[in-house]
Amino acid sequence: MEEARNRLLVVSAHPGDVLWRCAGTVAKQVKEGGEARIISLSYGIAGESVALWKQEGMTAEKAKQIRVEQMENAAKVLGASCEIWDLPEYPFRPTIEDMYRLAAVLRTYQPGIVLTHHDSDPLNPDHGLILDFVKNAVEIAGADGIQIEGTVPGFDRPEIYCFEPHASEASDFKPNVFIDITNVWEIKDAAMACMPDKAGIRKAYTERAILRATNAKSFGRKGCKYAEAYRAFLPFARGGGFPR
Amino acid sequence: MEEARNRLLVVSAHPGDVLWRCAGTVAKQVKEGGEARIISLSYGIAGESVALWKQEGMTAEKAKQIRVEQMENAAKVLGASCEIWDLPEYPFRPTIEDMYRLAAVLRTYQPGIVLTHHDSDPLNPDHGLILDFVKNAVEIAGADGIQIEGTVPGFDRPEIYCFEPHASEASDFKPNVFIDITNVWEIKDAAMACMPDKAGIRKAYTERAILRATNAKSFGRKGCKYAEAYRAFLPFARGGGFPR
Amino acid sequence: MEEARNRLLVVSAHPGDVLWRCAGTVAKQVKEGGEARIISLSYGIAGESVALWKQEGMTAEKAKQIRVEQMENAAKVLGASCEIWDLPEYPFRPTIEDMYRLAAVLRTYQPGIVLTHHDSDPLNPDHGLILDFVKNAVEIAGADGIQIEGTVPGFDRPEIYCFEPHASEASDFKPNVFIDITNVWEIKDAAMACMPDKAGIRKAYTERAILRATNAKSFGRKGCKYAEAYRAFLPFARGGGFPR
Amino acid sequence: MEEARNRLLVVSAHPGDVLWRCAGTVAKQVKEGGEARIISLSYGIAGESVALWKQEGMTAEKAKQIRVEQMENAAKVLGASCEIWDLPEYPFRPTIEDMYRLAAVLRTYQPGIVLTHHDSDPLNPDHGLILDFVKNAVEIAGADGIQIEGTVPGFDRPEIYCFEPHASEASDFKPNVFIDITNVWEIKDAAMACMPDKAGIRKAYTERAILRATNAKSFGRKGCKYAEAYRAFLPFARGGGFPR
Amino acid sequence: MEEARNRLLVVSAHPGDVLWRCAGTVAKQVKEGGEARIISLSYGIAGESVALWKQEGMTAEKAKQIRVEQMENAAKVLGASCEIWDLPEYPFRPTIEDMYRLAAVLRTYQPGIVLTHHDSDPLNPDHGLILDFVKNAVEIAGADGIQIEGTVPGFDRPEIYCFEPHASEASDFKPNVFIDITNVWEIKDAAMACMPDKAGIRKAYTERAILRATNAKSFGRKGCKYAEAYRAFLPFARGGGFPR
Amino acid sequence: MEEARNRLLVVSAHPGDVLWRCAGTVAKQVKEGGEARIISLSYGIAGESVALWKQEGMTAEKAKQIRVEQMENAAKVLGASCEIWDLPEYPFRPTIEDMYRLAAVLRTYQPGIVLTHHDSDPLNPDHGLILDFVKNAVEIAGADGIQIEGTVPGFDRPEIYCFEPHASEASDFKPNVFIDITNVWEIKDAAMACMPDKAGIRKAYTERAILRATNAKSFGRKGCKYAEAYRAFLPFARGGGFPR
Repeated sequence: MEEARNRLLVVSAHPGDVLWRCAGTVAKQVKEGGEARIISLSYGIAGESVALWKQEGMTAEKAKQIRVEQMENAAKVLGASCEIWDLPEYPFRPTIEDMYRLAAVLRTYQPGIVLTHHDSDPLNPDHGLILDFVKNAVEIAGADGIQIEGTVPGFDRPEIYCFEPHASEASDFKPNVFIDITNVWEIKDAAMACMPDKAGIRKAYTERAILRATNAKSFGRKGCKYAEAYRAFLPFARGGGFPR
Repeated sequence: MEEARNRLLVVSAHPGDVLWRCAGTVAKQVKEGGEARIISLSYGIAGESVALWKQEGMTAEKAKQIRVEQMENAAKVLGASCEIWDLPEYPFRPTIEDMYRLAAVLRTYQPGIVLTHHDSDPLNPDHGLILDFVKNAVEIAGADGIQIEGTVPGFDRPEIYCFEPHASEASDFKPNVFIDITNVWEIKDAAMACMPDKAGIRKAYTERAILRATNAKSFGRKGCKYAEAYRAFLPFARGGGFPR
Repeated sequence: MEEARNRLLVVSAHPGDVLWRCAGTVAKQVKEGGEARIISLSYGIAGESVALWKQEGMTAEKAKQIRVEQMENAAKVLGASCEIWDLPEYPFRPTIEDMYRLAAVLRTYQPGIVLTHHDSDPLNPDHGLILDFVKNAVEIAGADGIQIEGTVPGFDRPEIYCFEPHASEASDFKPNVFIDITNVWEIKDAAMACMPDKAGIRKAYTERAILRATNAKSFGRKGCKYAEAYRAFLPFARGGGFPR
Repeated sequence: MEEARNRLLVVSAHPGDVLWRCAGTVAKQVKEGGEARIISLSYGIAGESVALWKQEGMTAEKAKQIRVEQMENAAKVLGASCEIWDLPEYPFRPTIEDMYRLAAVLRTYQPGIVLTHHDSDPLNPDHGLILDFVKNAVEIAGADGIQIEGTVPGFDRPEIYCFEPHASEASDFKPNVFIDITNVWEIKDAAMACMPDKAGIRKAYTERAILRATNAKSFGRKGCKYAEAYRAFLPFARGGGFPR
Repeated sequence: MEEARNRLLVVSAHPGDVLWRCAGTVAKQVKEGGEARIISLSYGIAGESVALWKQEGMTAEKAKQIRVEQMENAAKVLGASCEIWDLPEYPFRPTIEDMYRLAAVLRTYQPGIVLTHHDSDPLNPDHGLILDFVKNAVEIAGADGIQIEGTVPGFDRPEIYCFEPHASEASDFKPNVFIDITNVWEIKDAAMACMPDKAGIRKAYTERAILRATNAKSFGRKGCKYAEAYRAFLPFARGGGFPR
Repeated sequence: MEEARNRLLVVSAHPGDVLWRCAGTVAKQVKEGGEARIISLSYGIAGESVALWKQEGMTAEKAKQIRVEQMENAAKVLGASCEIWDLPEYPFRPTIEDMYRLAAVLRTYQPGIVLTHHDSDPLNPDHGLILDFVKNAVEIAGADGIQIEGTVPGFDRPEIYCFEPHASEASDFKPNVFIDITNVWEIKDAAMACMPDKAGIRKAYTERAILRATNAKSFGRKGCKYAEAYRAFLPFARGGGFPR
């Protein structure tokens, strides 16, 4: 259990989601000696690249290339590995093969913690579908009767935490875990800076991190200056006592 | 923070509530080197003593005495201290003085963890009022501008966990923390046995503990055989990382 | 169990509530050979008597007298007994003695069914407090250790059904039981006519009864023309099979 | 209406679901003179057959054959007919043809009661999709403008009851109907015994049945020793009065 | 913003939905000088044409033709344009191409207000899927990186209002906007009359409009006699002050 | 209706609540030509004055005096009148006389808009009680049968908006109205500066106002830089059309 927690997997709809919503937690995982692996299911160039499309001569191929480079830079800053899958977006409509592909990753990487989207986002329907996709992959990975090439059946259900959508209350997001990222803030900020066409969002998520630290302090985390908010997908029963 | 967790306070409506709903967690607290203090706000002889009232010649005084002895025996088994306050029940209608009395306990005992009732119980309206009473006492205890004789202002908001009502779903109780009490089960069972007029409830909560262990296993606690279910009143931000 | 169902008790905040919200069910109870008893906790002359107060020379005493006569007339039409308690209204603030008074009624009348208000009404805070009052009285009545003059301890928790508030969805009222009152509609209408200063509300609740019949038909009650909507306070476990 | 209630249809994701979640109600239906028909939409060998896959030389075909035999044995014990459809599982992704196939069953069998899954199950995404599948089939069956070979349009919406998921509160399952299965308990237990590779689950659902009886007693069903919990999908308007 | 409000788009599952659920608002839009465009995604002849199918010799083609004529007549009465798309129904299963088709309409028509279904309807699963379809189309239309022939990227998220399902509370519909349609009631009624095979529903929605006026009066709209109820999909931030 | 909107009333638990939670809206009301009146129900010196109590020689009287001066200064900055009632706090336990006192204000001031607390705040139980107090006063003020010295019965239910608690999601606060306070931001900031012992909170609510502007932009308010979030207590039916 504890051992599996050394491996954290992020599954996001778009590359930017990782930077704004969970980069601090990823950095913290690495800083504390664990590993982190990032999978962005799409390039995010349909609806998540307003500024790019304003650049003259922009094409889908160029935009994808820019995102790959930014994501790789950010992953390097965070100390994580990353990959972008070319799944369709706007709308996201995963196939069963896509689920098996993720299930194969789960069986081989064996993460103890998975970070992904919350299941509702009125501003982005694609975001709201990722959690269901991840849950399906988790159950497939754990199913003894399912053969996937290159893998062996067997995967313990990991802890799944949903990161924060853009409009929290309107998405019925009610965070119940706050991660103190004060000591890795500079790393998160540097990672966000890798996507310079989204400077406004970087600023917004800086303020968000401060707000979440205000929350964390209310809930007992003294001295917190920057935090990220999560909703635990399942109840806590791991350690056997009250969570620390 | 960690230091305060050495002190656990239970605030229950009736003596029996402690035995069925959280005795395992109390025993675990003590077994792991911490302290536990139990306050039952009433004697529970109005509506919680069906079998006692069937005994010939039973009076309120006798019933109270029986409950005191049972509670003391149970506390001894658990390794906790206990007291019964003589607040009115059926209905529970606490005064401001009662709130201050509990606030004084909080300031002097300084518990890091408080266990109490969930805020809804269609089968027992009194149960549903205790959490609000506790919350008020917590805020009073922490208020710098409030003087209470024999105390000094200053109390850090503790972790509050609501234990399980008798009819879980009908009470809108949705537990998010499961405590593995396998290694203290005999102690809980012995504590429950201290109230022999309630043998049927002891049996029911034995089965409940097994059900909660089934839940805990689903949520990742391998090997759990007995568990207690709680709802954390506030989000988790104590330790700074994902709860363990 | 079945025997207790022969006695139905209504507990309302104001006299009019009975007429609009549950008179059809009361009439049906009587028509099918059962009894019904109505308790209005107040005279409803503070905020529920707009038209009366427009009459010249109106006083609180006159208004109360008018309500008593109307309520008695309506009860006669319905075949029920009725009484009005003079509890304070605007705001309703019941004492413990008031709870015991209702508990005494429960112990002596032994109703198997209780009709009362839903627990939220943004248009009338008093309405929202009655259910809690009733629940307390039910638990007090059933408590073996509580003595009330003129009664013997012992009362089986009755079925409680909450009738419909004026603005249903805004009150978070979600009915799960629809009573077909087609064959007693004329009786309900005649009862509503006993309060001629509220002709507009009589019309509104005629339309409401038709709407609720539309709902009832959607849920399988063919041929229903008039219905009343209720929320069962507790799950169904009485008969042992699927409810009929 | 009453006549249609003589025919009960179960639609489950996997064979085992029938045994743990509703076998008592099926047995009761038969014991009281009605009929019951069971459709398991898949063989449940992907993720619901952990122990089978541990047997040496196990193959999908063998596992399916084992499940068919077990299901037929259990159905015989229960006095019901049964069939297993070979729909895909992990993930369950029904086609429109599958919906029409179930609609055809509804039109020809004309059940008055349908038992199926609740619409959320964080531990098994497939379970959470069955209710929607059933609802679609119900509306298709009742649609006058839809032709399905071998059937005549026309089907009255049946009562639908959702049986219990494995982790009740975590699935937002709030049962509002409890079926007393005390007098058919031995039958349910014998049916559960037909799947010997799942002895642990049989034990867990024995304890669950006792817990649900504890609930049923709280809600008025005296003497109940074993019960099953359900959520009625639609409000009650069938009989016209308060449900019995 | 204000300018875009001159264009209102209705997206409904079936032609009749427009008449019962939002025709008053459409008429009001036109009366006040705006435009309205209606898209019914299907002909509604599978499950929404009970009476038509009772006519001798009815065929799908004839039924479709009848609906087209009725819809055109009703649109004329309302002063709106209308079109019926021939998407599959029972079940509604839109393709990505269908989403793009609606997105193209959004980009070219540029509506400021969209009226559509609520996202849950236990009596009609198809109704419950339309909002998600509309939301997807809105995000696609606004996505800078998505090319759709004959359109230019760019569409400001419109105000979306969900109209009322047939069984409001059972659909978890909680309206927060009431539109006073008193001064266009005759127009709505005339539009409803264009579908004479549904006279019963016309009557039911007349009563519904009166009920909603009763609600509107409770919430401050004096003198309202007929109203329609809506749920705003997003919070209000358009005008900058408290909504008028 | 529109005329009554010229008068806005704030009812808060403590003086500071006005500054952080709604000062921008108050300033906007005044800037646009309306009036605003502020009532703080207590001095807020029990639990809301941490820094004051750290000053040497601080007494309750001195602390109250400081709050009066700060509040008057802030009210002057905002252009509003203000008063502080000396009701008990920690816990807030209003009497019926207190309700009548507020009802008298409502009858004489006749506000069309009332701003007050949301009905849940796990960090401050007093906050969670104010809305109920206000609702009671509103119904009392509007009750024709209630005499209050110096007033005449008659008060139209105003629009009530609940401002934001400190920990939004943990308080189940779901804002549905965002007020753009960009053009009065300097005024709000100057008002917040009047309480210099709470500089940290001033900073936190500056960031909060920016976050709420981010939300407002998502919901269609272009160019918004600072906003306040509210939950409308009742549905919108005032203007008769879709809210602007």
